Amino acid sequence: MKIHNFSAGPCILPQVVFDKMAQACLDFNNSGTSILEISHRRKDAVEVIDTARALVKELMNVPETHDVVFMQGGASLQFPTVAYNLLKEGGKAAYTQTGKWAENAIKEAKRFGEIEVIASSKDQNYNYIPKGYTVPSDVDYFHCTSNNTIFGTQMKEFPNSPVPMVCDMSSDILSRTIDVSKFGVIYAGAQKNMGPAGSAVAIVQKDLLGKTGRNIPDYLNYETHIKKESSFNTWPVIAIYGVMLNLQWLKEQGGVEAIAKINTAKADAMYAEIDRNGLFTGTATTEDRSQMNATFVLNNEDFKADFDAMLKEAGVVSLAGHRDVGGYRASMYNALPLESVQVLVEVMKQFEQKFG
Amino acid sequence: MKIHNFSAGPCILPQVVFDKMAQACLDFNNSGTSILEISHRRKDAVEVIDTARALVKELMNVPETHDVVFMQGGASLQFPTVAYNLLKEGGKAAYTQTGKWAENAIKEAKRFGEIEVIASSKDQNYNYIPKGYTVPSDVDYFHCTSNNTIFGTQMKEFPNSPVPMVCDMSSDILSRTIDVSKFGVIYAGAQKNMGPAGSAVAIVQKDLLGKTGRNIPDYLNYETHIKKESSFNTWPVIAIYGVMLNLQWLKEQGGVEAIAKINTAKADAMYAEIDRNGLFTGTATTEDRSQMNATFVLNNEDFKADFDAMLKEAGVVSLAGHRDVGGYRASMYNALPLESVQVLVEVMKQFEQKFG
Repeated sequence: MKIHNFSAGPCILPQVVFDKMAQACLDFNNSGTSILEISHRRKDAVEVIDTARALVKELMNVPETHDVVFMQGGASLQFPTVAYNLLKEGGKAAYTQTGKWAENAIKEAKRFGEIEVIASSKDQNYNYIPKGYTVPSDVDYFHCTSNNTIFGTQMKEFPNSPVPMVCDMSSDILSRTIDVSKFGVIYAGAQKNMGPAGSAVAIVQKDLLGKTGRNIPDYLNYETHIKKESSFNTWPVIAIYGVMLNLQWLKEQGGVEAIAKINTAKADAMYAEIDRNGLFTGTATTEDRSQMNATFVLNNEDFKADFDAMLKEAGVVSLAGHRDVGGYRASMYNALPLESVQVLVEVMKQFEQKFG
Repeated sequence: MKIHNFSAGPCILPQVVFDKMAQACLDFNNSGTSILEISHRRKDAVEVIDTARALVKELMNVPETHDVVFMQGGASLQFPTVAYNLLKEGGKAAYTQTGKWAENAIKEAKRFGEIEVIASSKDQNYNYIPKGYTVPSDVDYFHCTSNNTIFGTQMKEFPNSPVPMVCDMSSDILSRTIDVSKFGVIYAGAQKNMGPAGSAVAIVQKDLLGKTGRNIPDYLNYETHIKKESSFNTWPVIAIYGVMLNLQWLKEQGGVEAIAKINTAKADAMYAEIDRNGLFTGTATTEDRSQMNATFVLNNEDFKADFDAMLKEAGVVSLAGHRDVGGYRASMYNALPLESVQVLVEVMKQFEQKFG
């Protein structure tokens, strides 16, 4: 049976990534060695990380002022890394609080200095994106979260910031066109639109670094990774190979602009059904709905087992919502085909016919 | 042609690991989904990390006083992590300096407090293991490096330490029997005897934690990972799956005690030839020679191209020494079969017949 994988992350990737990674586990580049047993400094391994970095730059149109580094530890390690690199001793930073991951980013930054939460949607269980706030000019940086995976909200616009803007784009990087030059740092755990779980990317404006007066551990210092071209220490070879393959696939699809159109088509189809179908209700405020994660609940929980059975029969997997919201969450990352959304919509329609 | 992979790390792993990882890239557990696209919280993913943890405990006979965590960032991130967790504000620690990685461990710890280097072999380009030093009792912990990959030396015994002993075992963990109860923390990058590149393991004595008075970032806090059973954030699913498979293989070989005997046989064969053959000289002091990495040089560098050609013809790959030592390095991790060492020894013998 064909599986339709709506996992919120780690998530669906293109089949070609699975195929080529499987092949590389057995024999990488016809070398007679598996990609799992080779030095990260072997020539064809270095080519992998160099190609991955170049593809991030190309696909996101990264300006010369910025560089791209691959690290480990996910966005959770980026939280203190950002503060280490940008929050001066005795300094202050401004954060928006738009979900659980924003909360975590704030929690970690608070270890390093004063954090001003300048806007929050916690009052409504994060079902909207705060707007109309002003980013203060007396802070070292401003931090926001572009897409809130758990709550299904997404920033459609970014504020004008008089200070460097830092953004956690873990769950919508590469899904839509972004003007990188507007950001001091963009970071993302890889396991949504970048590649398999096991790496993180940071896109860093170089002239912001080296100014906090902090004694930064080498691994947490963006300057280390820039200088060493992400080979400061052993990088996760198979994970970065997956990133490279995934970015090559994205380029073949026409790049970010082309995939953004498909993402919009998928989200439109999904939300149209949520709004049309009387048995479901979307949980996020309409104007702030995420194109990556559509969250919705059953109006009558008594039918949950029936709906779940129909999903299973149709091959729809990993649609359960996060415990903080409940209900369902359809994650529609780059690699999810429109066809999968159509299958899900069809199940919802049939469910309505049966139980509506 | 059969390849004999002497890579210093990432390094050879058992063929069954490559085969099963390749299969899982295509279809994990007959679920119709690739291991690369599933949530780390899916039941069969949780089983992977739980099994890997249980196998570390079983194979290393980890006592109840200790717990096992998987993290990312390699040993390089463990360097500041150890200091964050064990070096008190205003505290002091003692380190031995036995190679490049020990140097890096010292460099990172110095950011957190006073570091006393109580023994060093830097005077002889790290070709021996210092002995006869006394670990002071007025420090928060004592740190050593059990095996020096670059220089081919290995601690055969560990000192009696009046304070918690911390050991970087990146390149010889699981290669020989170790009394874990003697250590406060053992850590290792995975990419030698644990599994593919992309994870690190730490074995931590629980009652040592929470005492430094430091405001530790969650990701760098061992307590976080213990409490969350290494699922504080998205862990590298394919990398940990590789660790699990590799540990299952090790168990099938009879465990650490059984593999240690084979490792000794490999090292004995290797060093016997280095000592017998007049064209080569070992670089490490005899009594401190590593069973994992045998370093040696050609007595006459003029024959380098000839020897390299013979190695290539025999399928011996990744034998080049590190630039800090030069010459050659035969890394003989758990998964390297004795047969590969025999092939290398045979090449050295033929080389002697031709050019000796």
